[in-house]
Amino acid sequence: MQMIDIIAHKKHGLKLSNEEIHYFVDGYVKDLIPDYQVSALLMAICFNGMDKDEIACLTHEMMYSGEVVDLSHILGKKVDKHSTGGVGDKTTLVLTPLVASCGAKVAKMSGRGLGHTGGTLDKLDSIPGFNTQLSDEQFKKQVNEIGLAVIGQTKELVPADKKLYALRDVTATVDSIPLIASSIMSKKLATGSDCICLDVKFGSGAFFNDPEDARKLAKTMVNIGKSLNRDTKALLTNMDEPLGYAIGNILEVKEAVNTLLNKGPKDLKELCLEAGSVMLVQSGLFSDKKEAKKELVKHLEDGRAFAKFKEFIKAQGGDVSYIDNLDKFPLAKHIVEIKASKEGYVNKIVAIELGEVAMKLGAGRKTKDDKIDYSAGIIIHKKCGDYVKVNDVIATIHTNVSNYNDYLDEIKHAFVIEKEKGQYYPTIYDIEE
Amino acid sequence: MQMIDIIAHKKHGLKLSNEEIHYFVDGYVKDLIPDYQVSALLMAICFNGMDKDEIACLTHEMMYSGEVVDLSHILGKKVDKHSTGGVGDKTTLVLTPLVASCGAKVAKMSGRGLGHTGGTLDKLDSIPGFNTQLSDEQFKKQVNEIGLAVIGQTKELVPADKKLYALRDVTATVDSIPLIASSIMSKKLATGSDCICLDVKFGSGAFFNDPEDARKLAKTMVNIGKSLNRDTKALLTNMDEPLGYAIGNILEVKEAVNTLLNKGPKDLKELCLEAGSVMLVQSGLFSDKKEAKKELVKHLEDGRAFAKFKEFIKAQGGDVSYIDNLDKFPLAKHIVEIKASKEGYVNKIVAIELGEVAMKLGAGRKTKDDKIDYSAGIIIHKKCGDYVKVNDVIATIHTNVSNYNDYLDEIKHAFVIEKEKGQYYPTIYDIEE
Repeated sequence: MQMIDIIAHKKHGLKLSNEEIHYFVDGYVKDLIPDYQVSALLMAICFNGMDKDEIACLTHEMMYSGEVVDLSHILGKKVDKHSTGGVGDKTTLVLTPLVASCGAKVAKMSGRGLGHTGGTLDKLDSIPGFNTQLSDEQFKKQVNEIGLAVIGQTKELVPADKKLYALRDVTATVDSIPLIASSIMSKKLATGSDCICLDVKFGSGAFFNDPEDARKLAKTMVNIGKSLNRDTKALLTNMDEPLGYAIGNILEVKEAVNTLLNKGPKDLKELCLEAGSVMLVQSGLFSDKKEAKKELVKHLEDGRAFAKFKEFIKAQGGDVSYIDNLDKFPLAKHIVEIKASKEGYVNKIVAIELGEVAMKLGAGRKTKDDKIDYSAGIIIHKKCGDYVKVNDVIATIHTNVSNYNDYLDEIKHAFVIEKEKGQYYPTIYDIEE
Repeated sequence: MQMIDIIAHKKHGLKLSNEEIHYFVDGYVKDLIPDYQVSALLMAICFNGMDKDEIACLTHEMMYSGEVVDLSHILGKKVDKHSTGGVGDKTTLVLTPLVASCGAKVAKMSGRGLGHTGGTLDKLDSIPGFNTQLSDEQFKKQVNEIGLAVIGQTKELVPADKKLYALRDVTATVDSIPLIASSIMSKKLATGSDCICLDVKFGSGAFFNDPEDARKLAKTMVNIGKSLNRDTKALLTNMDEPLGYAIGNILEVKEAVNTLLNKGPKDLKELCLEAGSVMLVQSGLFSDKKEAKKELVKHLEDGRAFAKFKEFIKAQGGDVSYIDNLDKFPLAKHIVEIKASKEGYVNKIVAIELGEVAMKLGAGRKTKDDKIDYSAGIIIHKKCGDYVKVNDVIATIHTNVSNYNDYLDEIKHAFVIEKEKGQYYPTIYDIEE
């Protein structure tokens, strides 16, 4: 078998065999196949796609390119949740203790990628004392005991994805559904949970603007799960504005805590209840989503969700006095209000633009070695559909950088304010199962 | 400017600007842009193509990526000929002295690539004493004096093509018309002639099987020539069987000499007269192709073409006694006849297969360091449309390798013999101008 023939087959629209897919993934991970051949193949995949079998095989090969996590020592069905990424997305912080408080087992391993505003691990790291580096034993024990643990990857999971993603990133081959889907699913499957609930975002802060494009990605990932015998469901959710109001690590932890205290933003709560009810049914704890949702609402109202969150934070060494008294978290030096210079309806809040400014204010990492300023970020005060007048405060920035004035216009620019009220997608657009 | 944006533009079907094309060619030659980005761009070009302006710009940038030859010290219009490559293609050996004998100026610089059966330089090298390494001064002086010189490239011409071709070769991105056309034309233009006559082959021994695909390539190259102010014409010619009867260096030289003595194969003679008349009109020596062809026929008949060939061989140090007495050339140790095992019409002679066997018999180079056996090759005895009976001799191999028996079946296999007489393309299918 030769790599050039594999490239030519895909270029000419043929279906790659399992052997061909194995040959290229295995050869690439072992440095036997050079980048320039793989990038040509990736580009051919961007044009000619892959069918269901090819995508399942690619995912399988990527998944087994390194170690895979064995969670069989944890009793019961393990359920995981994954978001394709958005701005202000603190869902995991709320959703995982919420479902764990209802009896679900969540053994979550997160990667620590680059991002505009930090990932889940960064948000947890902003809680003093919190430890994301548990041993395998500790990790499994904690999930068995309290139903929830969130740690950084300890093993070399899916090295094929690391290499492929780095190559895609510099060869304009990121936006291909087979490649996105196999990348996400290989990592999720390698972390060993039995059930996966995907949150596929669409809109200005996501891979795809159009919900129907996001649906294609969702369908593809659900099909991969089915092909590889993992119960997989996918929510299609709106990222045409940030989720909730807070962007930035400590700011998001505070909003998550408030949501667990049933005082959170409507969209975040709705997403957590919807995803949570899917996960509880996947776990086998409920046969009916409606019943599951009722139970989740109860747990938000009576404090059990919040209590589970504190139990989880404490179990991983976090100082819960910060959770009980959010004012203990440090504030950034500069807290500056941004006012509207225009009257009208907020018809869009370009999430990606706010994410980029938040990063510049200190909330995210541009390169792997950048340090995150946990206190930095943005609070938005208006959401889509709100009416604003000139000089209404639309956002507040929190930062320790001194040149924050340079970014104020960018934030204003992210708010699309128009005379006529626009059309808005709902928070939950649909579910693929 | 960033390479990833250039890749993305082409991937999304946009037209690349001159600046973008300059950026990538220049950056690649200077090793500032890695192979893996260029191969992704090449694959995107395979899918989305390039328009006339992009192709002209790409050719221009490649052409000027290294030195270009200045032929301005040679008086008159310099005319060059280039074939896209075929098996048994000894056209240059006949055509260039033929047109030079009519007054045309041919200053030909050839590369020495890999090939099934050697290139023009190898064929000339098979004549004892012939020197393909003239100095610039000698080269120009010889063309001024006798109208013809053929040498190997002395300068670093078109380094961009060397790098790009090597990459295309291993990334399944060879068969793209913009890339083929710019590769050929950048090299031709860099060698400095005013007029170019292209011989674009189609059929089993060429890039394209279908003459209409070959026409697309021809049109593209003619357009490049026009865009860059060089008079360019292209013949579309048949390579569904080898040209003439001889394949292999000395065997082809002998056939070329016989053609110059007006005793050559019909198809080779026809091609030389057609291409020659185009070149004489391009040179400005004739205004009418018919008149030009009459003159060429005269020069074949009265010995002037042959005399010019000897003058040319002698000028470059070759021993003309071999030309006067072709029996002086060494013969291979094994000369073996191959007989038909089937009766019927020869409907195709798969040129590429014969070329590959000829290489194995010693006539060509597989790697740069391989030595050519000038005496090795194949003589075919039947052409398309001939009727053969069982045990008729269809070919004779000439070789010094001892395991030649291994290849006899491959040669038989190249002759497609069928009951019904097939349909054959003419030698000259059309001309693009």
